[in-house]
Amino acid sequence: MKKPIVAIMMGSDSDLKVMGEAGAILKKFDVPYEIKVLSAHRTPEETIKYAKSAGAKGIKVIIAGAGGAAHLAGVVAAHALIPVIGVPLETEHLGGIDSLLSTVQMPSGVPVGCMAIGSSGAKNAALFALGILSLSDKKIYSGLEKYRNKLTNSVLAKNKR
Amino acid sequence: MKKPIVAIMMGSDSDLKVMGEAGAILKKFDVPYEIKVLSAHRTPEETIKYAKSAGAKGIKVIIAGAGGAAHLAGVVAAHALIPVIGVPLETEHLGGIDSLLSTVQMPSGVPVGCMAIGSSGAKNAALFALGILSLSDKKIYSGLEKYRNKLTNSVLAKNKR
Amino acid sequence: MKKPIVAIMMGSDSDLKVMGEAGAILKKFDVPYEIKVLSAHRTPEETIKYAKSAGAKGIKVIIAGAGGAAHLAGVVAAHALIPVIGVPLETEHLGGIDSLLSTVQMPSGVPVGCMAIGSSGAKNAALFALGILSLSDKKIYSGLEKYRNKLTNSVLAKNKR
Amino acid sequence: MKKPIVAIMMGSDSDLKVMGEAGAILKKFDVPYEIKVLSAHRTPEETIKYAKSAGAKGIKVIIAGAGGAAHLAGVVAAHALIPVIGVPLETEHLGGIDSLLSTVQMPSGVPVGCMAIGSSGAKNAALFALGILSLSDKKIYSGLEKYRNKLTNSVLAKNKR
Amino acid sequence: MKKPIVAIMMGSDSDLKVMGEAGAILKKFDVPYEIKVLSAHRTPEETIKYAKSAGAKGIKVIIAGAGGAAHLAGVVAAHALIPVIGVPLETEHLGGIDSLLSTVQMPSGVPVGCMAIGSSGAKNAALFALGILSLSDKKIYSGLEKYRNKLTNSVLAKNKR
Amino acid sequence: MKKPIVAIMMGSDSDLKVMGEAGAILKKFDVPYEIKVLSAHRTPEETIKYAKSAGAKGIKVIIAGAGGAAHLAGVVAAHALIPVIGVPLETEHLGGIDSLLSTVQMPSGVPVGCMAIGSSGAKNAALFALGILSLSDKKIYSGLEKYRNKLTNSVLAKNKR
Amino acid sequence: MKKPIVAIMMGSDSDLKVMGEAGAILKKFDVPYEIKVLSAHRTPEETIKYAKSAGAKGIKVIIAGAGGAAHLAGVVAAHALIPVIGVPLETEHLGGIDSLLSTVQMPSGVPVGCMAIGSSGAKNAALFALGILSLSDKKIYSGLEKYRNKLTNSVLAKNKR
Amino acid sequence: MKKPIVAIMMGSDSDLKVMGEAGAILKKFDVPYEIKVLSAHRTPEETIKYAKSAGAKGIKVIIAGAGGAAHLAGVVAAHALIPVIGVPLETEHLGGIDSLLSTVQMPSGVPVGCMAIGSSGAKNAALFALGILSLSDKKIYSGLEKYRNKLTNSVLAKNKR
Repeated sequence: MKKPIVAIMMGSDSDLKVMGEAGAILKKFDVPYEIKVLSAHRTPEETIKYAKSAGAKGIKVIIAGAGGAAHLAGVVAAHALIPVIGVPLETEHLGGIDSLLSTVQMPSGVPVGCMAIGSSGAKNAALFALGILSLSDKKIYSGLEKYRNKLTNSVLAKNKR
Repeated sequence: MKKPIVAIMMGSDSDLKVMGEAGAILKKFDVPYEIKVLSAHRTPEETIKYAKSAGAKGIKVIIAGAGGAAHLAGVVAAHALIPVIGVPLETEHLGGIDSLLSTVQMPSGVPVGCMAIGSSGAKNAALFALGILSLSDKKIYSGLEKYRNKLTNSVLAKNKR
Repeated sequence: MKKPIVAIMMGSDSDLKVMGEAGAILKKFDVPYEIKVLSAHRTPEETIKYAKSAGAKGIKVIIAGAGGAAHLAGVVAAHALIPVIGVPLETEHLGGIDSLLSTVQMPSGVPVGCMAIGSSGAKNAALFALGILSLSDKKIYSGLEKYRNKLTNSVLAKNKR
Repeated sequence: MKKPIVAIMMGSDSDLKVMGEAGAILKKFDVPYEIKVLSAHRTPEETIKYAKSAGAKGIKVIIAGAGGAAHLAGVVAAHALIPVIGVPLETEHLGGIDSLLSTVQMPSGVPVGCMAIGSSGAKNAALFALGILSLSDKKIYSGLEKYRNKLTNSVLAKNKR
Repeated sequence: MKKPIVAIMMGSDSDLKVMGEAGAILKKFDVPYEIKVLSAHRTPEETIKYAKSAGAKGIKVIIAGAGGAAHLAGVVAAHALIPVIGVPLETEHLGGIDSLLSTVQMPSGVPVGCMAIGSSGAKNAALFALGILSLSDKKIYSGLEKYRNKLTNSVLAKNKR
Repeated sequence: MKKPIVAIMMGSDSDLKVMGEAGAILKKFDVPYEIKVLSAHRTPEETIKYAKSAGAKGIKVIIAGAGGAAHLAGVVAAHALIPVIGVPLETEHLGGIDSLLSTVQMPSGVPVGCMAIGSSGAKNAALFALGILSLSDKKIYSGLEKYRNKLTNSVLAKNKR
Repeated sequence: MKKPIVAIMMGSDSDLKVMGEAGAILKKFDVPYEIKVLSAHRTPEETIKYAKSAGAKGIKVIIAGAGGAAHLAGVVAAHALIPVIGVPLETEHLGGIDSLLSTVQMPSGVPVGCMAIGSSGAKNAALFALGILSLSDKKIYSGLEKYRNKLTNSVLAKNKR
Repeated sequence: MKKPIVAIMMGSDSDLKVMGEAGAILKKFDVPYEIKVLSAHRTPEETIKYAKSAGAKGIKVIIAGAGGAAHLAGVVAAHALIPVIGVPLETEHLGGIDSLLSTVQMPSGVPVGCMAIGSSGAKNAALFALGILSLSDKKIYSGLEKYRNKLTNSVLAKNKR
């Protein structure tokens, strides 16, 4: 079994349904990843310990999904230099605009690459991570080409019908 | 010189102008406080170290002001059990609605008492801290009574004019 | 039976489902509380009478939940010096952003400590009240430590799985 | 000097510049009014006392302007049965959307007739009050007819140019 | 059968469920009213004709409910001098914030008294109309006193339980 | 002098600065237009009369700019069958989001083609009108081609620098 | 079978339910149209190829519906000079305000005529296209007159009931 | 002179002031970059040609800044597989919330890593690009470590004062 090179973090296992869509895409590309249920607010020390050590362990990209006052991606980015991708999750009352603003409006110096709210964001987080990895991995790059072509062809097929 | 019992935290010294209004009120009440320029994103370790040790050092209430993806109050609350009051600061592009949602929409388990955006919030953070301290300090309580009466009388005086 | 030291106020008994979550947490901590169904708009005089007398009766913290043009916490805070915690409740049409802004945007001089919208906010209101009470009650403080540890451990257990 | 039949209330004398535009219109119509600087939060008892007694004193319509967590119109409406018109005032950080939602989203049972944010709202509050008074005062009604015609003609004159 | 003195207008009969709540309250107060299904956009001429003639026919207050680009209340107010109360109706996609802004943000010169979004707004529109009518009708005034007392007592009864 | 085929309507001559940008573009294309200062709320009858007669007079497209509860384009569209283009104008307090929602959220049956807020919207309204006219006027079509090429070339020139 | 003169574009066949309402109206008017499932993001080249060639093929108006970061109408407008009508589609988390702003806030130089969010917008897109076509097609113009009269009469019939 | 490995794209040279902050950071790290003034709407073909060829030319990351209906990053991402970072720029009327939603709410399949609105976003775009490049370039990685330490120390120095 290969060592994970992508980490998918989320604050609660109830986020697994959405964030699992990121995992499913990485799996298709045979990219080893690990899932971490760690919360910026409920397990801050373990979150930080993980963020600080992930790079040295071989993780190249971290995907972090959180909702509401969504601090997970920002807290992780504050303790890591490898790219951190944030996925703002839907919230019960405000639809996720709170998660989005808490994830994207980072101060200069500590970047987070923010995706769309919810499952589109989770899937795109995996694809963005693959785009990063593809810079030094031709197999992933040609996998992305095929993925994009398939996407295009599936729309074109619908267009014909 | 007395040991501080309130901490006023902010992520940047440019926030001092607004957050200093909290200090000015505490000073009027002779409540010793300390100001900490520590950022959830730029100095995460020092922020956390401070949050974890503040209670033991004698701090009873922490006031934390931040803007944008305003994680300071939440990160401090994740590492402290004493009351944490959040002040969402104005932002250049969105007026502070981003700061407000990032501060107030905390997940259950880790509370932050959020004030209004900007200087009204900073002043009220001090008054709220004084309200907490007044539960076990009669001098502060009677100070608050006088403050509130003065507020009332100043409006009534304007009403007469 | 012990005298209540926390009050949980709400404008309608339909708010009881959400605000009851605050009571459930206080109960776990053996903190006596009373529930008051009083509205800023429908029973203004009784609301004010209660707000003015609560402190003298032994109430140390007031939690007030309301929705829409959510004036309850603000009106109570205008008549009381003890800490008032506001819980903005969900609304049918705007999700609760109206409740949030009506609760949090208080003018300087009359602070309300605002929580998140809905049931996360109700639970955190109780925890914030406990944080305040813990400043002079070691049993509550160690209760909060245990609560926080349990929260941490429950996330860590999910992380393992 | 005639007894006032309209009251213009505001929480602070800094609101006088905007709310004075309501007074200017009432003056043009020779409708006696009084200005009250009373705040829902800073002078709650005097505000309520005024709201409760205004009708008996001869006031027929109350105009109340406030900003932020704008509770003034709602608090007055809770203590009065005569029509209460709310004017949401501009706020420094959110433009007045907070004032608007706090004024307009009243629960059923206690109505407030809400106007536009800021000075358009203040002027229209006076005109709306005049519309109410005109139901039993033909002079005011024909004054409104003239006002509306003048408005129309001033636009038509600009159209010609 | 008495001549109507209040008109309840709406753009579509699908709005009847919500706007009918205004009628139900007027009925309780024995205030004769008529319902008009007329749209600012789909039947503009009939809408305007009605708005222009309503006052002369004996209508004293017009209640107008509309959703989306909710122009009904504003268009009616442009053609009538009697008080026009606007009820912003819920919309499928934006919850009614579009209806609210289209109804409340009237330019100076043509006032609309705006209520809350949806059924609270519809009920309050009727109560506000009754408040206006009560200025010259003691029976309605004492009816409103009873209504308000009942409201208060119903909350107090729930408080006891 | 040629008969106008486009009308530019606005509620107030203070809108002329922004709406004049539409006129400047039409002038460049030698398309005759007329400017009408007519308000949905202040001169409703003249507005409607104009809207109803414009088509027969030879007007082919109407451009209508308004702010706040921006009903002008909708009211015109309710009385005309020729294409109506709406330009939501900036507002003092809400930036123009109120104008945008009041203009764009039209009910089915009465379409308005809405442009961006402010001067970009005014310019594009003229270009959109030209696009419509170009369907039966080759000179305008080739004018648009040149305009678009110039736009492209001006960006490309900047790119080179 | 007649050559299509209107194109209805959408990014996914899941949008067909809403966008099909535009087609249904065109069909009633016997206006030939074609449906294109082409995405600005997933089939960019085919989208652009279509946009560039549509005019020469005889298409006179393009209707483009998209949701989220809704770039379809804008991308098509960047490659076509014939009128492009945008329909912002509902989104899962933000109701469609994201689609609306992405569609309507076009930079000056490249206009899109934006409709309301969702199915009202889709229907109105067809009616707006018909309004454009009616400028040079009397049959369509008289069809629109009938459609509008039917709309009016259907409301008036409901008003009678 | 080294071949550029990062591209900074923007729709107008007026965006250069903000987007130039990204360039300034890349320069400090001795990372060669090129600036492209190309617009999704005004120079669509050149934009697409550039997006399609950038990877083969040696560009590893594209940064794209745009405002309003901000399609630039999305259009580029639709034609490129290398990572695309979006910077939503401030807009005159809505502060940039329109740019943010147009940039971040991408459909699944075509990811854009979105930064904060305005100059914080531009700076972080460069840092995020550096984070990506640092995965295979130790010099950049240690540069980022120094940059982060400097950031930390500058806050700590302010804290001491």
